[in-house]
Amino acid sequence: MESLVQSTTRTRPDTDDPSAPALIRNGGDRPEWLVQATKPVRYEVRMVDGLLDPAHPDLALAGVTERTGNRRFIVLDDHVERHYGDRLRTYLDAHGLEPTICVLAAEERTKTMDSVSHVVRALDAFGISRRHDPIIAVGGGVLLDIVGFAASLYRRSTPYVRVPTTLIGIVDAGVGVKTGVNFGSHKNRLGTYFAPALALLDRDFLATLDERHISNGLAEILKIALVKDMRLFSLLERHGTTLVSSRMQARGADGEVVQEVLERAIHGMLEELQPNLWENDLQRLVDYGHTFSPTIEMRALPDLLHGEAVGIDMALTTAIARRRGLVGAGEQRRIGGVMRRLRLPQYHPVCEVHSLAEALEDTVRHRDGLQRLPLPVGIGSARFVNDVVVDEIEQALATLAAGGLDAA
Amino acid sequence: MESLVQSTTRTRPDTDDPSAPALIRNGGDRPEWLVQATKPVRYEVRMVDGLLDPAHPDLALAGVTERTGNRRFIVLDDHVERHYGDRLRTYLDAHGLEPTICVLAAEERTKTMDSVSHVVRALDAFGISRRHDPIIAVGGGVLLDIVGFAASLYRRSTPYVRVPTTLIGIVDAGVGVKTGVNFGSHKNRLGTYFAPALALLDRDFLATLDERHISNGLAEILKIALVKDMRLFSLLERHGTTLVSSRMQARGADGEVVQEVLERAIHGMLEELQPNLWENDLQRLVDYGHTFSPTIEMRALPDLLHGEAVGIDMALTTAIARRRGLVGAGEQRRIGGVMRRLRLPQYHPVCEVHSLAEALEDTVRHRDGLQRLPLPVGIGSARFVNDVVVDEIEQALATLAAGGLDAA
Repeated sequence: MESLVQSTTRTRPDTDDPSAPALIRNGGDRPEWLVQATKPVRYEVRMVDGLLDPAHPDLALAGVTERTGNRRFIVLDDHVERHYGDRLRTYLDAHGLEPTICVLAAEERTKTMDSVSHVVRALDAFGISRRHDPIIAVGGGVLLDIVGFAASLYRRSTPYVRVPTTLIGIVDAGVGVKTGVNFGSHKNRLGTYFAPALALLDRDFLATLDERHISNGLAEILKIALVKDMRLFSLLERHGTTLVSSRMQARGADGEVVQEVLERAIHGMLEELQPNLWENDLQRLVDYGHTFSPTIEMRALPDLLHGEAVGIDMALTTAIARRRGLVGAGEQRRIGGVMRRLRLPQYHPVCEVHSLAEALEDTVRHRDGLQRLPLPVGIGSARFVNDVVVDEIEQALATLAAGGLDAA
Repeated sequence: MESLVQSTTRTRPDTDDPSAPALIRNGGDRPEWLVQATKPVRYEVRMVDGLLDPAHPDLALAGVTERTGNRRFIVLDDHVERHYGDRLRTYLDAHGLEPTICVLAAEERTKTMDSVSHVVRALDAFGISRRHDPIIAVGGGVLLDIVGFAASLYRRSTPYVRVPTTLIGIVDAGVGVKTGVNFGSHKNRLGTYFAPALALLDRDFLATLDERHISNGLAEILKIALVKDMRLFSLLERHGTTLVSSRMQARGADGEVVQEVLERAIHGMLEELQPNLWENDLQRLVDYGHTFSPTIEMRALPDLLHGEAVGIDMALTTAIARRRGLVGAGEQRRIGGVMRRLRLPQYHPVCEVHSLAEALEDTVRHRDGLQRLPLPVGIGSARFVNDVVVDEIEQALATLAAGGLDAA
């Protein structure tokens, strides 16, 4: 294969003008061209309070350019429509805006190309301008993934704004650049990397979530804590129970804890994403908890939420790390204890060793031939391994089936 | 709206480390982050002879990395399967390769998400590695657009190689980065910008095209000639008739003419594409002939090939340019004469003024609110205008309906 690599790297531009394609003669009488360019990407992630308060202009101005008119194309998931539809319309009206609002039932089972087509038909009917009518997506991670995907494909890219309304959206799906839908039995098998113009994060939306969906988001926060932020772990350990029960709505001193948890989680996430926005490096700390969980989540549908499947994966890999001596017995118990406080499951009946071995194989293909599996090292640190074997999965499963990390 | 623009540009990174997200406090107590990155893109366009000759390694090594094995995932359109399937299998066998070959009926009417799903299911069944099993697409522009789209979406991007087998593919669809499918009545409404790893161009494939498909590709070559290459126009004027009848298969001295025509067309195309790969500048010379033609082509389906619709658009806009005094009477006749030699139509019954006015409106939306319509200035040059009115379209149509540019 070496000759090919040489044959490819042989082609170099013969000019310094970056705007001219370099015409190369490859030694024979047939030309080769090397086309080169760089695409700059830039987007803003902004925490806000009171996004739907007419006194605040953030939403009215989101994605706006000097040529934007008063029309807005907005996609809501059905939960948002139910809980916030009226307030949103009042807000838009107060700002003199004329919205077209498209409501989508957005859940894992409808995260399909059909839902993308639905959005595309609505965009066609709206007659959206190519660059100056922002598409505004307000909803959970699934809604954002579907609308982001539609926006990235529509005329090969149309600007959009993300307003996550779930905790998992605020700390994970809402701040990155991934879009996508499921295909067949595979999660996010089709998708794009497409940065929003802006992401607006407002924890007010969490007030109407049930506690289970708060736990769902806390799973991704715990992930960041475990692989890179001991301080964040301590905050979850001390305040986990009330973070769930208060739905992150505390103000005053307790509100500062909520704010610090969110800021650290988002900052940690963006620190990992920014240098690797297109996942050229497949060894990603933020993939922690995402090795076995795609298969667990899809097989358990509709039993487990995404974060719950991630929780089970983190429990499993913590148990594997424990057996390798990377995590101490006390650390394992602390991690299990935090998961319990965050009401995250550590086991589900679909977790049997054969399925999980298959899950690992599929992930190896997804990570281009290597496991690149992050394992916790103590708390707040991680390392990548490529040699997890079926026996270890089986032993770790036994720990989880026998009562979990903190019962061991 | 100015206040928004200020509000957005207010966020600047507070660090010079490009790998760290810049955490900005926006004057209040809520943080903003600005995420920034650049994506480098690089691909090679290579002219070759005898691609299916087992003595030539180009195809066997296409898209190969140091970790590629002997498996190959190849998508062919049904014409290629019929004419070249056996030779391709013999070639792959001679190189010890184990292909999985997926055959697709690829035409405008099947250029849909369903065809993309078909390719995706085949990729799933193949179990393609994320980065080291190149997807090889061999076929016409429609096939390349469908497979490129599937490759760009699969796991959010999987490398692929383009082997165009039609003239329009070799000089246009095959050398750029656009992928896509039609949606509803809109051409290429959904798509991505996704560079192939490599494009391999072999005019041998043109031997089995009918003459109409040679004309189809010559339309895009004529486009480049009209907007930027007088020498290319002269070659088409002198050799147009034989270029069609010989199916670009001439060798010897005539073969050098064919080679020069192809090289100039490809070079001119790449010169326009490279500095504007993502179409940030919507004022594109290569959009000449593509203002009215998307609507003409879709309304006339299956009557007109893409290049034929482009030909009608070029005739129409030449007539408009003539009435504005941008093109002289003699030049108009020469252009009409070349179109006749290339067997390109200048009119079709679906061209009525109401449809074409609608076509222009749709294009204005696609070009973000302005016509950005390239009009020829003499031969080999062009300028952009934004003020074409319905009357001009009507008068130009009259010229075409009355016998065409060279009858005027």
